[in-house]
Amino acid sequence: MARIAVLGLGLVGGSMGLALKRRRLKDIEIAGYDIDRRVADRAERIGAIDRAVPNAPAAVRDATIVIIATPISAMREVMGEIAEALPEGCIVTDTASTKAEVLKWAEELLPPRVSFVGGHPMAGKEQSGIDAAEAGLFEGRAYCVVPTTSAREAAINSVVGLAQLVNAIPIYLDAQEHDAYAAAVSHLPLVVSAALFSLVRASPAWPEMSQMASSGFRDATRLASTSPELSDDIFRTNRDQVVHWVNRMVQELVRLRDVIDKGGEEEPFKTFARIQLERDTYVTTGAKRREEAVPPLPDAGVTISDLLVGEWAARRTREILKSLEEQERRAREKRPQRK
Amino acid sequence: MARIAVLGLGLVGGSMGLALKRRRLKDIEIAGYDIDRRVADRAERIGAIDRAVPNAPAAVRDATIVIIATPISAMREVMGEIAEALPEGCIVTDTASTKAEVLKWAEELLPPRVSFVGGHPMAGKEQSGIDAAEAGLFEGRAYCVVPTTSAREAAINSVVGLAQLVNAIPIYLDAQEHDAYAAAVSHLPLVVSAALFSLVRASPAWPEMSQMASSGFRDATRLASTSPELSDDIFRTNRDQVVHWVNRMVQELVRLRDVIDKGGEEEPFKTFARIQLERDTYVTTGAKRREEAVPPLPDAGVTISDLLVGEWAARRTREILKSLEEQERRAREKRPQRK
Repeated sequence: MARIAVLGLGLVGGSMGLALKRRRLKDIEIAGYDIDRRVADRAERIGAIDRAVPNAPAAVRDATIVIIATPISAMREVMGEIAEALPEGCIVTDTASTKAEVLKWAEELLPPRVSFVGGHPMAGKEQSGIDAAEAGLFEGRAYCVVPTTSAREAAINSVVGLAQLVNAIPIYLDAQEHDAYAAAVSHLPLVVSAALFSLVRASPAWPEMSQMASSGFRDATRLASTSPELSDDIFRTNRDQVVHWVNRMVQELVRLRDVIDKGGEEEPFKTFARIQLERDTYVTTGAKRREEAVPPLPDAGVTISDLLVGEWAARRTREILKSLEEQERRAREKRPQRK
Repeated sequence: MARIAVLGLGLVGGSMGLALKRRRLKDIEIAGYDIDRRVADRAERIGAIDRAVPNAPAAVRDATIVIIATPISAMREVMGEIAEALPEGCIVTDTASTKAEVLKWAEELLPPRVSFVGGHPMAGKEQSGIDAAEAGLFEGRAYCVVPTTSAREAAINSVVGLAQLVNAIPIYLDAQEHDAYAAAVSHLPLVVSAALFSLVRASPAWPEMSQMASSGFRDATRLASTSPELSDDIFRTNRDQVVHWVNRMVQELVRLRDVIDKGGEEEPFKTFARIQLERDTYVTTGAKRREEAVPPLPDAGVTISDLLVGEWAARRTREILKSLEEQERRAREKRPQRK
């Protein structure tokens, strides 16, 4: 019996467990640990893990893969706690929203006998905690894979395999790229959303405004409900990038304000038409990409050695290519032949 | 057979038709007109209207209630076109996103023998046009009712009844209040969303960033997909308010940036914790308010005279009050009695 250990059983850790268990892995036990014992018990009850373990070192002993899904602010400490207990050849990954600091801690604290490969599943929702966990959280979402320079190739393939097992789309980045891009598409939207909500909420007319607000306001301010622990962790570990993007956002708002205010008859329409067109293109291509990337049916019976040698990931790729070829062949047959 | 005329059969006009038809109104025909004949035919085919009429004056002749659901930029012209054909005592309403200008046009162009009551159902979605129309679009959403000074009380009640018929929650506002509040909860989010998308989209790293972006980015930028016709109409008819709120948004972003950058150990967490708490409260109360306000079962058999004398709206109110009293009575009985 091989073991995958999940440390930290909030929304992401719990959802990882549920998504893995849905695959009915063969001869793999998922051990879970959370600093709050009731959370670990709850994770066991809802079937996110096979067994709750009372402390982090006990959870990682004999583990083949360790997923650290605690808040970023706890990761350094957790790495220190488990370092000694990690077995030879163990693959350690995480799920943090920023990567540069986390990789530094891993290189500083984890022993050379293990491989650390950073991970960041790009998924979230309005609620947090184990009760919000769901098996489908990562479906069709990007899963950033950020290897340390010392990670073995097989370890990197295993984390890619893990991403595919939870139906996510693995993408490779280095830590600096990751943090710069995440600042734009994830951390900036969080600050913008919080600013929008906070501003309107502070209006003396809020009682009337809040009655009027509809799905547009709700969607635009969804990220204002991000847990403050997560926001604070992001600001602490990616401050410069966040500040940089907020400054650029201020400039862009001023630009659009001037278009609206002084753009005359044509500029406002043209500007907002271009933005709408580009966003529609993004949504359409994104949906297509996800459709192509998500395996059409859940697999079952993945073993730990499939994961370890990257065999499972390779097999999935072959299956997807085969199905694409098949589609193409059929399309060719349908086309009228010129004689 | 009484007639309700819907002029303009896009997302809102089409959805009004579908939502009304779902009620199986008694002896009421819904006549529809759109400048694009194919759109009107399509609306008839999907059952959003009973009959497509080839021009606006023909649609409003004999109508008891007229709903103008064209783009704002067409409303002035449509009012001019239908003015002569409107029958004595007709109730005219609209669905525009801004109200001050629309009410001015109505007072200027519509004859004194009709009552104009402005309306604004606070509902939207990423797609527009008749193919995006749906009967449930207004469910649980606010429906602003903005009477002109000359509107008869019965006309106001009829528009309230109309809002309730489509399962929306009517709220009263004057035109100035409406435009000020809508600027904050609807037009500002649109500009913010467009600025966020436009900024990130312009980055040289967009190809990588767009692969990484997830549901958070998608939700925060949803309003960037607003049709540019609508955005432009809003800016033309509510420019000062929009510019005012964009300026305040810039200030709020700068404030939060400083909290993140220079707030030390505690300020960022505290600030974002307060925002999260307030947003969660807003979402919870909003959901509760909607649950209480939405009639538990769709009604059928509403007649035009129910609508005209406000009898239907009054009956619904009585039913809701009765059910609340019933709940309270039961709660009282459950409470342990002191002796």
